[in-house]
Amino acid sequence: MRDEIEILQRKAAGESGVIGMGGGLPSPRQFPRRALVRALTDAVFQASPPALQYAWPEGSDDLRARIAEYMTARGAGVEPDRILVTSGAQQALMVASQVLCPRGSRIFTDPETYPGALELFRTRGIDPIPFPEGTDLTASDACAAYVMPVVSNPRGLTMSEEARRSLLESGLPILEDDAYGDLRFDGPGPRPLLPEAPDRVFFIGTFSKTLAPGLRVGWLIPPERLLEDATRVKKDADLQANGLGQAIVEHFLRNEGYTKQLVRLRSFYRRRAKKLAAAVRRELPGWRFDFPEGGFALWLEAPEPDCAGGELGLLEAAIEEGLSFDPGSSFRPDGSPRPLAVRLCFSALEPDELAEGAKRLARAWRRVSS
Amino acid sequence: MRDEIEILQRKAAGESGVIGMGGGLPSPRQFPRRALVRALTDAVFQASPPALQYAWPEGSDDLRARIAEYMTARGAGVEPDRILVTSGAQQALMVASQVLCPRGSRIFTDPETYPGALELFRTRGIDPIPFPEGTDLTASDACAAYVMPVVSNPRGLTMSEEARRSLLESGLPILEDDAYGDLRFDGPGPRPLLPEAPDRVFFIGTFSKTLAPGLRVGWLIPPERLLEDATRVKKDADLQANGLGQAIVEHFLRNEGYTKQLVRLRSFYRRRAKKLAAAVRRELPGWRFDFPEGGFALWLEAPEPDCAGGELGLLEAAIEEGLSFDPGSSFRPDGSPRPLAVRLCFSALEPDELAEGAKRLARAWRRVSS
Repeated sequence: MRDEIEILQRKAAGESGVIGMGGGLPSPRQFPRRALVRALTDAVFQASPPALQYAWPEGSDDLRARIAEYMTARGAGVEPDRILVTSGAQQALMVASQVLCPRGSRIFTDPETYPGALELFRTRGIDPIPFPEGTDLTASDACAAYVMPVVSNPRGLTMSEEARRSLLESGLPILEDDAYGDLRFDGPGPRPLLPEAPDRVFFIGTFSKTLAPGLRVGWLIPPERLLEDATRVKKDADLQANGLGQAIVEHFLRNEGYTKQLVRLRSFYRRRAKKLAAAVRRELPGWRFDFPEGGFALWLEAPEPDCAGGELGLLEAAIEEGLSFDPGSSFRPDGSPRPLAVRLCFSALEPDELAEGAKRLARAWRRVSS
Repeated sequence: MRDEIEILQRKAAGESGVIGMGGGLPSPRQFPRRALVRALTDAVFQASPPALQYAWPEGSDDLRARIAEYMTARGAGVEPDRILVTSGAQQALMVASQVLCPRGSRIFTDPETYPGALELFRTRGIDPIPFPEGTDLTASDACAAYVMPVVSNPRGLTMSEEARRSLLESGLPILEDDAYGDLRFDGPGPRPLLPEAPDRVFFIGTFSKTLAPGLRVGWLIPPERLLEDATRVKKDADLQANGLGQAIVEHFLRNEGYTKQLVRLRSFYRRRAKKLAAAVRRELPGWRFDFPEGGFALWLEAPEPDCAGGELGLLEAAIEEGLSFDPGSSFRPDGSPRPLAVRLCFSALEPDELAEGAKRLARAWRRVSS
C-alpha cells in the first residue's frame, strides 16, 4: 500500500502540471538566501575552515551555544554540552529510538502523526500504537511516547493541558518532536515538556521548517544519563552533521535575527492556511477539519468513510486531475486507509494554487464518491 | 580504554601547541574553496532551489549521474539509479551493515582497519574478526567481509592479487570501502571489486578525502536486490543527504575537473608521506613501517611489543611532548593494544610539523621504553 502511494506520488512529482500538496515542504520564498550566501562565504574563507573539515560528533560548540540560548528563550534552558547536533530531526528521532526502544517494544503516538516517525519505528521493529483512551498510561508496557506537544502533525494543534499532565504523570519516557514548534501562528505556545521531566524527555528540534530542509541541521537533547549512548549512536551513523549547514545556522542565529524570521514565517503561513481553509470550505462542503494552530497543513476528513477504489482510488483520481497529497493512512500507526482522510499542505504553494488545488480535489472526489 | 584514549585526544585537540597526527584529516590547503563558493552561489540562487528543499532519499539525480560517470571511469560502470547518495561513507557503512549483518553475526576485516567501522560493528552487535590465515573462507559463517582493496587504512596498501581472488572466490558478501581509493600515489590501482561480483558487493565511496569532509557526501552501491531495503534504511536515518553538499559536489564534478584535483592531491600527499617517512627513519630507528601506496598515514610498529604504561602511557607521554596520534588498538578488531603500534597522519600537516612530530614521538618513546 505504502509502496503504491509512493509510486503514484513520485510519478506526480515528475509531472509539471500537478499541484503538490504533499510532503510538508516549507515555502522556497522564505529561504533566507542572501543570508545563507553571506554565512557560507564567511565559513569557507576562514583560516583552516572547520566547516569543511572533520569535527566532533556532537556538533560545533558555537552552534550548540546558540541552540542553548534559543532553548532558554523557549523556557527550556540547558547547558550547551547537553545538546547533540544531528543531521535533521529525523536523525534525532532515529538516535533517540535506538537508545530507548528495543526491537519488539511498543511506542505510543497520537492517532495521526508524522509518517517518518512511524516508518522509522516499524523498520526498527518498534510497534507504534495510539494512546489508549481513558486508560491509565502508568500501567502500560510501552517503551516511550512520541508526541508533538506545541504544534502537531498533521493536525497542527497544541496538546491540551490535560493531555500534557496525563502524559507527564505517566512517568513514560517521551520523544518530544518540536519540528513545527516555532510555527504556531499566534506565537509561542506552552513551553516544551523537557523542563518538566528532563530525566526522561528527549527533545528534538530542527531548522528544516524555519530556515531550509536541505541544510539537514537539527538537534537532540537526551536525558543526561543517556547523552553518551546517544552520541555514540550519532557518531556511528554518520560521524557528524554536515559542517556547512552547521556554520550557516550558527551564523544566522548570531547575526540575522532568528526571532524576526519566525515572526515573518508565522504570519506568512497563517495567511496561506486561511486561503486553503477558505477554498476547502467553498469547494469541499461536507469535508471536516479544524483550523490549525500552526504548521504547514490541513487534516481533512471526508464526508464518507470510504470511496470507490478506497484511498488509493482517490489519490489516483486526484493526480489525474492534477493534484497530489498525502493520504491519511500514512499518518496512522496501524496504516489504516479508513476513515478516509487527507493531509493538504498549504506551505509551499501560492494562493491561486491553493484555490485550484481544492477545486481539483473536489473534482476527484466527485469521481470516486458514490 | 577507548574512552580514555578519546579523553586524552580531546584534551590534546584543545591545546594549541600540540601537533595533531590523528584523525585522518585532509589538508585544508587542498579544499577547493573558491570553487565551493561558486557552486554554492549557483545552487542557492536557482529558482525554487532544490539544494535547500526536501528531496528524495536516494539523492539528487544530477549527482547520481555524475557519480555513475565517475564509476565508469574507474572500470565499475553502473546505472545512476543503482546509486544511493549518503551522508558520508560512514552512513553508507551503517546502511550496508544494517541491511546485511544481523545482531550477533561476525564480519571479517583486515588485522588493522578503519576504527569507525569497528565501532559501528560493535555498537550494532556485529563481531569484527580478522581474516583467518590460510583457512578456506567459503566454510565461514561470517555475514560479510569488510575491506579497503585499493588503499587500505591504516597501512595505505593495495590488496594483493591473491587476496582479491581468494576473497572473491569465497562467495562472501563484501563491504568494499573505497574511501582512499582515489588517493593512490601512483594513480588508479586495480579496479574496484564491485564489477567482479555485483550481486554481493556493497561499494562505498566518498568525497570527504578529495573535496572536503564537512560536506558529508558519500555514496553506496548495494546489490540491486537490496537497493530498496538500503534506501529505506537511509530514509529512516536522516531522510536525505544535505542538499548544499550534494549541489557542491555535482557542480564540482561537472565544471571543475575532478580528475585534475585527484592528480594534484596524489602528488601533494605523496610528498607529505615522504617527508614523514624520512623524519621517522631519522628520529625513530627501530620502528618498522612499509612506505604506503596511498592514503593519509604511516602505520608504525614499535621496536618492542609494549612499554611502561602500555599504549596509553605512550600516548600520554606524547601529548606531554606536544604530539597526538591514533593508537594501534583503535584499528584492531579485538582492540588489543599489543604489539605496540601507532598511526601517524601526514595529511593535514606542513613539512616542518612532520619533522617535529617525529622528534616528539621519539622523545615520548625514550620516556616509556625500557
